[in-house]
Amino acid sequence: MSHLGVGVSPGNVPVYHGSNLKMVDRRVRLAELVLRCVICGLGVLAAVLVGFDTQVKEIFSIQKKAKFTDMKALVFLVIANGLAAAYSLAQGLRCTVSMVRGSVLLNKPLAWAIFSADQVMTYVTLAAVAAAAQSAVFSKFGEPELQWMKICNLYEKFCNQVGEGIASAVIVSLSMVVLSGISAFSLFRLYGGNKGKSSASW
Amino acid sequence: MSHLGVGVSPGNVPVYHGSNLKMVDRRVRLAELVLRCVICGLGVLAAVLVGFDTQVKEIFSIQKKAKFTDMKALVFLVIANGLAAAYSLAQGLRCTVSMVRGSVLLNKPLAWAIFSADQVMTYVTLAAVAAAAQSAVFSKFGEPELQWMKICNLYEKFCNQVGEGIASAVIVSLSMVVLSGISAFSLFRLYGGNKGKSSASW
Repeated sequence: MSHLGVGVSPGNVPVYHGSNLKMVDRRVRLAELVLRCVICGLGVLAAVLVGFDTQVKEIFSIQKKAKFTDMKALVFLVIANGLAAAYSLAQGLRCTVSMVRGSVLLNKPLAWAIFSADQVMTYVTLAAVAAAAQSAVFSKFGEPELQWMKICNLYEKFCNQVGEGIASAVIVSLSMVVLSGISAFSLFRLYGGNKGKSSASW
Repeated sequence: MSHLGVGVSPGNVPVYHGSNLKMVDRRVRLAELVLRCVICGLGVLAAVLVGFDTQVKEIFSIQKKAKFTDMKALVFLVIANGLAAAYSLAQGLRCTVSMVRGSVLLNKPLAWAIFSADQVMTYVTLAAVAAAAQSAVFSKFGEPELQWMKICNLYEKFCNQVGEGIASAVIVSLSMVVLSGISAFSLFRLYGGNKGKSSASW
């Protein structure tokens, strides 16, 4: 058994002593940390760009103010990106601590929790981007068949800033997609190691 | 080595002899097959419900016809669900063949291909649902701040049928989410088995 470098603890958590596993884990952890930082930064940027975007226009002596709460999809985008940033900050700290300690993630419940949370965040940020992008398309080009007029020629500065926010949110959701792949790897590789050993027991 | 029930073939494909692996694999494969069938059926249903939905209204003696091509998000929804159905049919056949043969998926490149394709299909169907749902909300409730009027009181039958299509597409995308979890499991468990063995070699 020892030449395999693999032992099985009394619980369901296998204990690996292989140095290559630590090396792979360190690389994966580093990629994860970089992505979490990117998401945290760009998530805040997207939320701020959209959330603090306002423009006042005077139409026939009536002052109209455009703000992100006029469109539910933008509210969803701000909330989703704020959540993603806060979540990534917390996960980034966990990541840094375990990198400093040099520990390897072999705890199945923790790996399941990280995997599930990453999945949920990925789908939420992606859905927010898709809904916001759809609203942006309506605002930019209108929908002539339904007599929905385009409003971006009226609120040009507002629309441009929302566009920048959406671009930032797109990068956030793509980073989340890669991250959820990484956390799937971190979780499911735990299910390969001790499969063969217990082949007769269940 | 033999007491572990695990051998390593000359290539990078580990060969497992454990009967429990086959049992787990059979259950996973069965769940996969059921989900693929659900996606295939509901994907076709969603595409047909939205794609063949039309309603003619006479407004001030002018005939207006509502159809799904009036809204880009619905076109995207029809294409995405059609694709998901065709893809699931193909994957379902592969699944059935390997269940009949009783073979276990241990081929890494194939597992990577299935994982990647499942991920892409999941994100595409989810984005399509989010965009279509956003458009449906605008159609149902309008957006008073932007003077976009609701159109569902005009085309009630059309809107209801689109709503049924979107509900069907929501189930499709949730099934795809579970499926992409399954294919992640099928792929990444291959990366746990022979980690320890080569600990000294790299």
